Amino acid sequence: MSNAWVGIGVIGYGYWGPNLVRNFATSESARVIGVADLSAANLAKCARVHPEVVTTRDVRDLLQNPLIEAIAVATPVRTHYDLALAALKAGKHVLVEKPLAETSDQVMRLMDEADRRGLTLMVDHTFLYTPSVQKIRQLIADGTIGDVYYYNSTRASLGLFQSDVNVIWDLAVHDLSIIQYILDEEPVAVSATAACHFAGTQENMAHVSLFFRSSCVAHISVNWLSPVKVRSTLIGGSRKMIVYDDIEPTEKIKVYDKGITVNGSAENPEELRIGYRAGDMWAPNLSTREALQAAVEHFIDCVRNGKQPVSSAASGLRIVGTLEAACRSIAAQGRPVRLKQDYRLLESA
Amino acid sequence: MSNAWVGIGVIGYGYWGPNLVRNFATSESARVIGVADLSAANLAKCARVHPEVVTTRDVRDLLQNPLIEAIAVATPVRTHYDLALAALKAGKHVLVEKPLAETSDQVMRLMDEADRRGLTLMVDHTFLYTPSVQKIRQLIADGTIGDVYYYNSTRASLGLFQSDVNVIWDLAVHDLSIIQYILDEEPVAVSATAACHFAGTQENMAHVSLFFRSSCVAHISVNWLSPVKVRSTLIGGSRKMIVYDDIEPTEKIKVYDKGITVNGSAENPEELRIGYRAGDMWAPNLSTREALQAAVEHFIDCVRNGKQPVSSAASGLRIVGTLEAACRSIAAQGRPVRLKQDYRLLESA
Amino acid sequence: MSNAWVGIGVIGYGYWGPNLVRNFATSESARVIGVADLSAANLAKCARVHPEVVTTRDVRDLLQNPLIEAIAVATPVRTHYDLALAALKAGKHVLVEKPLAETSDQVMRLMDEADRRGLTLMVDHTFLYTPSVQKIRQLIADGTIGDVYYYNSTRASLGLFQSDVNVIWDLAVHDLSIIQYILDEEPVAVSATAACHFAGTQENMAHVSLFFRSSCVAHISVNWLSPVKVRSTLIGGSRKMIVYDDIEPTEKIKVYDKGITVNGSAENPEELRIGYRAGDMWAPNLSTREALQAAVEHFIDCVRNGKQPVSSAASGLRIVGTLEAACRSIAAQGRPVRLKQDYRLLESA
Amino acid sequence: MSNAWVGIGVIGYGYWGPNLVRNFATSESARVIGVADLSAANLAKCARVHPEVVTTRDVRDLLQNPLIEAIAVATPVRTHYDLALAALKAGKHVLVEKPLAETSDQVMRLMDEADRRGLTLMVDHTFLYTPSVQKIRQLIADGTIGDVYYYNSTRASLGLFQSDVNVIWDLAVHDLSIIQYILDEEPVAVSATAACHFAGTQENMAHVSLFFRSSCVAHISVNWLSPVKVRSTLIGGSRKMIVYDDIEPTEKIKVYDKGITVNGSAENPEELRIGYRAGDMWAPNLSTREALQAAVEHFIDCVRNGKQPVSSAASGLRIVGTLEAACRSIAAQGRPVRLKQDYRLLESA
Repeated sequence: MSNAWVGIGVIGYGYWGPNLVRNFATSESARVIGVADLSAANLAKCARVHPEVVTTRDVRDLLQNPLIEAIAVATPVRTHYDLALAALKAGKHVLVEKPLAETSDQVMRLMDEADRRGLTLMVDHTFLYTPSVQKIRQLIADGTIGDVYYYNSTRASLGLFQSDVNVIWDLAVHDLSIIQYILDEEPVAVSATAACHFAGTQENMAHVSLFFRSSCVAHISVNWLSPVKVRSTLIGGSRKMIVYDDIEPTEKIKVYDKGITVNGSAENPEELRIGYRAGDMWAPNLSTREALQAAVEHFIDCVRNGKQPVSSAASGLRIVGTLEAACRSIAAQGRPVRLKQDYRLLESA
Repeated sequence: MSNAWVGIGVIGYGYWGPNLVRNFATSESARVIGVADLSAANLAKCARVHPEVVTTRDVRDLLQNPLIEAIAVATPVRTHYDLALAALKAGKHVLVEKPLAETSDQVMRLMDEADRRGLTLMVDHTFLYTPSVQKIRQLIADGTIGDVYYYNSTRASLGLFQSDVNVIWDLAVHDLSIIQYILDEEPVAVSATAACHFAGTQENMAHVSLFFRSSCVAHISVNWLSPVKVRSTLIGGSRKMIVYDDIEPTEKIKVYDKGITVNGSAENPEELRIGYRAGDMWAPNLSTREALQAAVEHFIDCVRNGKQPVSSAASGLRIVGTLEAACRSIAAQGRPVRLKQDYRLLESA
Repeated sequence: MSNAWVGIGVIGYGYWGPNLVRNFATSESARVIGVADLSAANLAKCARVHPEVVTTRDVRDLLQNPLIEAIAVATPVRTHYDLALAALKAGKHVLVEKPLAETSDQVMRLMDEADRRGLTLMVDHTFLYTPSVQKIRQLIADGTIGDVYYYNSTRASLGLFQSDVNVIWDLAVHDLSIIQYILDEEPVAVSATAACHFAGTQENMAHVSLFFRSSCVAHISVNWLSPVKVRSTLIGGSRKMIVYDDIEPTEKIKVYDKGITVNGSAENPEELRIGYRAGDMWAPNLSTREALQAAVEHFIDCVRNGKQPVSSAASGLRIVGTLEAACRSIAAQGRPVRLKQDYRLLESA
Repeated sequence: MSNAWVGIGVIGYGYWGPNLVRNFATSESARVIGVADLSAANLAKCARVHPEVVTTRDVRDLLQNPLIEAIAVATPVRTHYDLALAALKAGKHVLVEKPLAETSDQVMRLMDEADRRGLTLMVDHTFLYTPSVQKIRQLIADGTIGDVYYYNSTRASLGLFQSDVNVIWDLAVHDLSIIQYILDEEPVAVSATAACHFAGTQENMAHVSLFFRSSCVAHISVNWLSPVKVRSTLIGGSRKMIVYDDIEPTEKIKVYDKGITVNGSAENPEELRIGYRAGDMWAPNLSTREALQAAVEHFIDCVRNGKQPVSSAASGLRIVGTLEAACRSIAAQGRPVRLKQDYRLLESA
């Protein structure tokens, strides 16, 4: 680690890869050495914008390049496991696009490989690096919100239908990572429903309910077939409530001093007095830093200093496990599926 | 029916009753004769605004009044059955606030009583009388939308916690009536989850999925504990998609010429080609007539001419049956509950 | 003044009159005795909603009624002077819809008559009684905003074309009253432009600039021919800036901690360093009380206790004077017209 | 012109220059040869992103480079004239950022130089190349809108205070170019007011009214000191009205079938009957092509084929002339200033 910078190889230059290359290139602590992609057209595009980078159709050219210390994987989900495993076996630190892999089994094997070799394995849950989500986490942690009653999210747009995963692996995965990051408790069960409207494709809309031991609940609606783009989350707490709208160009987070108070005894419901509180709204100023830049810098910092990433493989394991359970619930039209607290094992209800 | 107008009695002058009285009073075909309420303060309020109306704390004063041909019931849900039954037995036509009763059993008994006596029994599913929902129904019926893929609705606000019913009986009931009105197929099963955040109260947020025999699905999110008011519905079709936002003061309905096309064989998913269509948006001009005025005129027309109401007791029965099934699913954390196609019988999965 | 309530007569039951009658009727300190209107249809409408009120086509019936202590005038602007003068001469207190009269001359004569008789003369600048404008006034008065740099307002809609006044007498009058109420300095000159798009009608859109001795400026855009309704005001200050959007159902006022700072000497502009400050936004909770109810209660309080109204005739005089000056500027395509500081005299530049 | 591409030099790599370089680099018909800037930091930034481009602090390196056929000038306004003139004298085609120069005199001298040498001289009025403005132009040209009654625009934000020009040269210039492009008549007079809130700086907010021979009027509000970003234009026509909101991510243009109709004789205003028309709204789908890419391709096409640019120097002359006249009106607090129809001469009223 005597270099002034970490040499980076990027596998996949399709939709997200160019963003990774741009952000690694912008970092003063990294240098993009090579990019691999199966498509000659993608490589040509890369060569035009980044003439200094080596391009190749053979990932082995990256794996064998001694200048490359770390590999970022931005390919279809079905290839994550093989590519990440190969990179780890070649001694490279690895950053994988979300979701980390197709199954929790695969994730555990990647974790074992990374542990054995002392390498950093990070999953790119980019939202954890946005100023918005970091602010929400802080507002919950410092008690501003009070007890969290619910997390309700909608992600809809006329989205890119993916061939190898359904809409929850593409979109709900964001909310699962955010929920894990901002709450200090893990869900214990999941109920999900979904629909597929085109023969031969995966489910294109889904609704996921997460249950917790406390009275907190979470609900995630995802939709690839919406005429309008929606990225809206409501978080209700005993003290304050948050509206987080990621479409808003500036005031992405609004904190409302609203709620209800219940007086009287729960044993005599008829005598309960419910009061409604309507106070001020407040939109904290947020940094405009690009989230992927923060994610990339964090990855480099973990690689250099042996730190555990915020979006660690262990956190990715829980998320993949929840996605697997949600898919089982979808197959059973909403039947609840329990989640084990030891996230290296998952069982159905 | 020789009168120039229908004499009306209204039971309940709390939240919704004043609106009923005002709209019946505005109609040239009706005259409000009397209002009953247990609260002297409510009756005093009524007397101030409508000095010509008889007010009473005893509903029998209305039931026995020969000038009153029809009774509107705007009281808490737990009293709907007894009051509607008494009114029918007194020979009055009846309009009941939604939901029609607490159980499908009660609804069937009310239907039998009304049938036996040849009286009109209507439930006030007000949304069916809005220009917005009528336009949506027309756009589906005339083929503009194509096959309906989904109905996705969110109703949230800092709502009035009701003591005798939970949030789905208060809010999801609107969507169930709309779905029944605009689609030509009935749901076959329901999966629902919910949460209650205050001891002694009913569930204050819920998520309901409805399954149909076709690939159509419906999802309804309702929430009494939201800092902002949301009344937003997305309807996806094979030809067009609708955004229906009831908060918008003018353009409540937007029709998008957007969607996807799938080419290739479903048997070879890898060869499927998905195309994305983005065309114009169009917001049809809508009448600004108050929905409750239309509902009230429709009720009077049914009373006078023996017509079957659009929001008939039979339609109300299906909705109550679906609400009962949803509650059973909620108790089982989302386990699906099947709905019988003969809506006079309901069974669980 | 020994009565428990003030007897009220209302002249004019067209667009605004019904609101006045409803709000006076709701007040516990007033009783609506009679309503006059030239239209039999309007009177019939009044009789239906308010059967207890005397209706007449002859205003003298109100002027001579000893139960009536105060008269509200809600008629076309060209009749304000004659009706208000007659009411004062009959010894009645008077509330006149905005604008108070057609000319500053008329206003001064009404003021003289009211002064001579010791009667209350108030103009209904309703916006001064909204929680929004009162909050803005407070935020300026307590120093939160700092020095006010500008007031920029847009009022547009597909509005009712009036036959006797142009759009600035109908809409800009609101802003002139608000500016007078929230700022502690009066404008010294006005420049205005306008356009009339239909032969035989008055100007239907206009833009008014007001100059002050300080660096504060105000600008008002009004438009009767807009496809969308706009009621938006920006107020810039040295410490904070306000966005006041009267269309918003809840957060009508947003206070932004944004602005710029200038360092260096104005004598060396090239060395000026400009800093940009972007902080939090805050939307104060506002009462939902109806403004007209507050205005009506204030009028009754002034009548009973001999207080000077917030929207006094003297304040109305300044506003009419500014409207007259703006019309002179419009006739000269924006040429500035100076406003005298002694508002009983106005001179052109 | 035998090359497959046009060699480009860019002067200025501050705020806008990087966008020009990126778009020229993306074009298949151009190649960026060199970039000049006085700031070493800016040049270093350029070298990092575009390692293949020659960077220099001396513009003569570009002017003397035979590979460079065309120069783009993206520097402060006060330098436009000298740099553009030098480039023309060196035989280069020239694209200048808006506004073309500081005075109409300077523009005419640049035009003469370009004419004499047969070189392309284009000003980058980027908005003319947006799909939105092109759609508006088409809707007016094809009669959809009918007679244009008004163009009302607001451009506000917490903007970059420029040291050498005031806010109308920075922002109103966009609207002047759009008005010229979409209307088929030129303004005949201008009235403008403005305010400067910080000693040593230029006017930071302004309001400009343009008069036409027809009943059409235009109004432009610009503001560097707004807490929120506003880019909103209303265009009223006899048949339809347009709302053009450039902040909207997708439906930037909405066409309303709204308006009024006047029946009766203008000679008897009291008998005029005004009707209000409220019909559908329609948002045409718009291309998402970046405007600057279209502008750059158009410039290259003009250079190669000797075409007259849409945003020609002659069109830029009229705009600079109007800006000069507006500044004279500002100095006289709104006094109207007449504009000559022969745009090579301008006179005051």
